[in-house]
Amino acid sequence: MKLKELWKERQQMVESALAGELNKKSPIDKTLTESMEYSLMAGGKRLRPVLLMAAADALGADGTKFLKTGIAIEMIHTYSLIHDDLPAMDDDDYRRGKLTNHKVYGAGMATLAGDALLTLAFEVMLRQDGVDADTLVKVVREMSVAAGPDGMVGGQALDVESENKQIDMDTMRLVHMGKTGALFRAAIRSGATLAGATEAQLAALTEYADKFGLAFQITDDILDVIGDEAVIGKPVGSDEKNHKSTYVTLTSLEEAKKLAQETADEAVAALKDFGPEADFLRELVSYLVDRNK
Amino acid sequence: MKLKELWKERQQMVESALAGELNKKSPIDKTLTESMEYSLMAGGKRLRPVLLMAAADALGADGTKFLKTGIAIEMIHTYSLIHDDLPAMDDDDYRRGKLTNHKVYGAGMATLAGDALLTLAFEVMLRQDGVDADTLVKVVREMSVAAGPDGMVGGQALDVESENKQIDMDTMRLVHMGKTGALFRAAIRSGATLAGATEAQLAALTEYADKFGLAFQITDDILDVIGDEAVIGKPVGSDEKNHKSTYVTLTSLEEAKKLAQETADEAVAALKDFGPEADFLRELVSYLVDRNK
Repeated sequence: MKLKELWKERQQMVESALAGELNKKSPIDKTLTESMEYSLMAGGKRLRPVLLMAAADALGADGTKFLKTGIAIEMIHTYSLIHDDLPAMDDDDYRRGKLTNHKVYGAGMATLAGDALLTLAFEVMLRQDGVDADTLVKVVREMSVAAGPDGMVGGQALDVESENKQIDMDTMRLVHMGKTGALFRAAIRSGATLAGATEAQLAALTEYADKFGLAFQITDDILDVIGDEAVIGKPVGSDEKNHKSTYVTLTSLEEAKKLAQETADEAVAALKDFGPEADFLRELVSYLVDRNK
Repeated sequence: MKLKELWKERQQMVESALAGELNKKSPIDKTLTESMEYSLMAGGKRLRPVLLMAAADALGADGTKFLKTGIAIEMIHTYSLIHDDLPAMDDDDYRRGKLTNHKVYGAGMATLAGDALLTLAFEVMLRQDGVDADTLVKVVREMSVAAGPDGMVGGQALDVESENKQIDMDTMRLVHMGKTGALFRAAIRSGATLAGATEAQLAALTEYADKFGLAFQITDDILDVIGDEAVIGKPVGSDEKNHKSTYVTLTSLEEAKKLAQETADEAVAALKDFGPEADFLRELVSYLVDRNK
């Protein structure tokens, strides 16, 4: 399948580029670098950089030219996971089957590893070549808004405050738009802007990004229920155990599945004026939602 | 005294500009904004933005034009204090006579407030006007290096690892160069670069910055001893209680005083080719060291 091949190829480019950035460091503190590396190189789908490059591809550009900006957004994503897992936040011991950063390096060093990755992300973005400085300033500024108090960190804060509380659909949407939606949107818009998108193209890709983010979240909520069922033979997932409001708990499994499919269709529809260069984006959102079935 | 008047005037500009940035936010989470504000508006000398503006003044420019970059560096400084104070790090209950951020908002929210301030700092820097995009990219990139794993966060990590250990002079220098030196240097170099410094001017101001940072640190170590003596009648300060290696513990009080004065003289000497526009920088380092006496 074309989708998986290209995805894997780009994923490997991301791995190499990330490793390259860490090797370049002549660290004041070796444990800090190790701790950054531990989480950054712990695998993952590398979805955000892959989306960023695919958005540039969709405009007929070569997405790999913007790998630097792609790995920067992966650093931002990784820092957010390290801080989320901290004892003072979700207090998680495992992520992707490995001990979380603070379980290995301690909460102090894990906090610093997150801080370091966030700061390094801006440095790496500002080393993106092949683009004029005005566009670069625009892209990096937008990324800072997406990752900051009006975006990802804001969503995370609202999530911390919503813990063990019944929240309504609007609040849950706000949490998701911040926690996960903002970075998906920034990934796709950055790729598009770096590749010289017109206003209309940028608007269409933004619409795609927002639908993609929503479909991603609903699917995640569904998999928390039916995924667990398959693996541990229990119909109840961790979200319900943690009294977490999700698309499934606030509606129903059937409703959520329907909504995921509708949202994915809307994402594809947003790309109607794009040619076959956008096929990866089209297939990606379908693939994502098909994991429900 | 001219120094104090100008300092106070600039300090007030910084306060207003910081408050303005926070008011502009339409927060996803109000507690997050409150928590950012709590630490950001807790006073302080605003030394870094004042230095940034003074470096631009020294080149005959109007330093206040670069207030945005100045307040951004103050946000970075504030985030570093919030994270330093966390239970997982220094576990401090008070700062500047007020409860630390996590004592008021909890460690999770305090972590996020720090994350938010760091990210917002980049956004604010990238809104600096009156400068071409190429220069802006250069300045912000340098700031990210100064604040990141090869700068401030690196120094902080080394400090965490040196806790309750006897460290030598070289290690202590590395900690200081990262923890405090890197931001002083970035403040002064940013102001100079934004104001269009020549290579020679930038080199001289960098030399000043490094001597300033060192004199600042030595003075801090001295005040930890003689400051306490005056206030609580004990000759032993918190650094010694915490088994912290300082310029005083690694040499002697007299040696440290001598070194502070020599370093301050070197800072002033670095400005020999500058006119009266650099008087603020000259007076500032003298003022700093005179607090020892």
